[in-house]
Amino acid sequence: MGKYWSEDFYNSSAIYQEGLKVKKDVEDFRSRVAKIIGVGSKEIVFTAGGTESINLAILGAFEESLKTFKKPHIIVSAIEHPAVVAAAEEVVRRGGELSGAPVNEEGVISLPAFKKLLKKSTFLISIGLANSEIGTIQPIAKIGRLVKELRKERESSYPLLHTDASPCPSYLDIKLETLNSDLLTVDSSKIYGPKSAGILALRKGVKIHPIIFGGGQEKGRRAGTLNPALIAGFTSALEAAIRDKESEAKRLEILRQRFINHCVKRLPSIIVNGSSESHLPNIISISVPGILGEFLLLRLEKRGVLVSVGSACSVDAQESGSPVIKALGKDDLKESTLRFSFGRFTTEDELRRAAEIFVSTLNL
Amino acid sequence: MGKYWSEDFYNSSAIYQEGLKVKKDVEDFRSRVAKIIGVGSKEIVFTAGGTESINLAILGAFEESLKTFKKPHIIVSAIEHPAVVAAAEEVVRRGGELSGAPVNEEGVISLPAFKKLLKKSTFLISIGLANSEIGTIQPIAKIGRLVKELRKERESSYPLLHTDASPCPSYLDIKLETLNSDLLTVDSSKIYGPKSAGILALRKGVKIHPIIFGGGQEKGRRAGTLNPALIAGFTSALEAAIRDKESEAKRLEILRQRFINHCVKRLPSIIVNGSSESHLPNIISISVPGILGEFLLLRLEKRGVLVSVGSACSVDAQESGSPVIKALGKDDLKESTLRFSFGRFTTEDELRRAAEIFVSTLNL
Repeated sequence: MGKYWSEDFYNSSAIYQEGLKVKKDVEDFRSRVAKIIGVGSKEIVFTAGGTESINLAILGAFEESLKTFKKPHIIVSAIEHPAVVAAAEEVVRRGGELSGAPVNEEGVISLPAFKKLLKKSTFLISIGLANSEIGTIQPIAKIGRLVKELRKERESSYPLLHTDASPCPSYLDIKLETLNSDLLTVDSSKIYGPKSAGILALRKGVKIHPIIFGGGQEKGRRAGTLNPALIAGFTSALEAAIRDKESEAKRLEILRQRFINHCVKRLPSIIVNGSSESHLPNIISISVPGILGEFLLLRLEKRGVLVSVGSACSVDAQESGSPVIKALGKDDLKESTLRFSFGRFTTEDELRRAAEIFVSTLNL
Repeated sequence: MGKYWSEDFYNSSAIYQEGLKVKKDVEDFRSRVAKIIGVGSKEIVFTAGGTESINLAILGAFEESLKTFKKPHIIVSAIEHPAVVAAAEEVVRRGGELSGAPVNEEGVISLPAFKKLLKKSTFLISIGLANSEIGTIQPIAKIGRLVKELRKERESSYPLLHTDASPCPSYLDIKLETLNSDLLTVDSSKIYGPKSAGILALRKGVKIHPIIFGGGQEKGRRAGTLNPALIAGFTSALEAAIRDKESEAKRLEILRQRFINHCVKRLPSIIVNGSSESHLPNIISISVPGILGEFLLLRLEKRGVLVSVGSACSVDAQESGSPVIKALGKDDLKESTLRFSFGRFTTEDELRRAAEIFVSTLNL
């Protein structure tokens, strides 16, 4: 990243050699990212992060779909990231319709219930590949196949499927084709890359209207001078995530299970949220009935364990507790839930100590 | 910037100490920026650059104004940056109206002509404080006074005045009050700061609808995890620009005049565009009748002088030549115009040599 801050700082849209050289580098990064997602370079749009990418997918597809539908309809799952929820609510403000697809107690979307929500005017389904609070992985490829068949049956370019894969590149396959998806979001900061970087990847032929207008950058889909430093950092981070994916997924799954076993044995009243079968290996969501999560967070922090309650990106500070836990049918636990997350730099010893501290904090 | 990449990388929305510490730093940067613009900290929205800031001002004010007007009307000058032009065109696509305010041969907006364009439904006037291609400075404070009086007369919160001050902080006063403006854009990369950073500053009480939705960051006006590194770089760059403003403006104005004198004496057919009275000291726009700008650019580049033709952010690659030069009534020169721009690191000797190379290139 450094060289683009201090040496090759030229505008990649300038037409002199120094600008063209930076442009060549950016296009090289783009094709490396495209290769990982399994799309052509032209199908990668660089954005200022996951939130912008999600907004571009949802509002960009919505505005484009107004050419086809009078009152376009969107389906999102009941446990989406605040950016998906807020962009879907903006669709409604702009004259569209919104349905929330219910999930079961483990956070897995119900396919029969989902199918019933589909309308003639459904332009988009937006479902995260995995939930960043509870770690549950969704059957996106299945949903994608269903959506694809529907397009064929209707002889229409709608509905489209968007998936936010931001919490996933370090552990799951994020190829667009594997996921049967039409639009895919990746955020840089979730994979040890720099903040303010990300992509929206599109299946060839998928059209979106921009949400930021100006210079013709990114094939007219996202205006603004490109930031080669952030793009370089994001690309390296993504490649590193993919390289270590299998070994890290295995290593962390073992640590995760040990952490859970250690805690459940000693604290029989706690509840581990999410799916025991299909989950990210780096997230543990634990509810402690009757105890306020924020209180526990502060206690743990004093002893060197940093945890989260809900999402740091929480859309509505007015409502207390996690809407994700609420959507699991656990309304009484929404303020009593902690997320332990770990990753590349977490050792076995650290996670063991964290579990011990958690147990002894609750046993005080 | 470095420490936020590698050490204090915590999410400033997280509620543990490390997150709160970063948040405190961000709020410190915010108040330093706010002091320079002369507004309260709450009136500064950090964005991913000038283009996003302009879009937030124009589309954010448009969506908000739909509560007041059925068909909101916007006025932009005929020589705006592509981001202003494209966002204003999006206003039209969304059901609003657009008028272009004409400029005279020097690029200065005509106040009588501007007044005639005002409608009952005018929600916004967006005029750049200075043009980045020809350097002409607009009488923004005067326009702002007029707009203010109009609001009083109409007992309305509309129209509002937005000014893109991106090319200006190094040379001009950018206090919101001095400029009688309601919304103000600053881009980081134009003041030696990092790319992908910028602000929209608002007069207290001015309401806008977001263009990117999600977490409640930036008082709900701009969703997305904040980037403390970019914010730190932008703040330092802005403070340095303001600190050196007067001395740099004086120094560069002398160099600019010498460059022009040198060239005009030896190349009597060239035309210096812009205002001789009111201009930025670091931009020289020169038209060379009958010669293609891109041809000259390549010739000059070979000899070590990097210039621009039009804007690198050109919105429509289909139309050749600069729309700014065209708007000056110089349609025949729009493809024959070069921009020489310089700044903090340009020495007297360098600019003298650049002038000599330019003259000898044309005399070959």
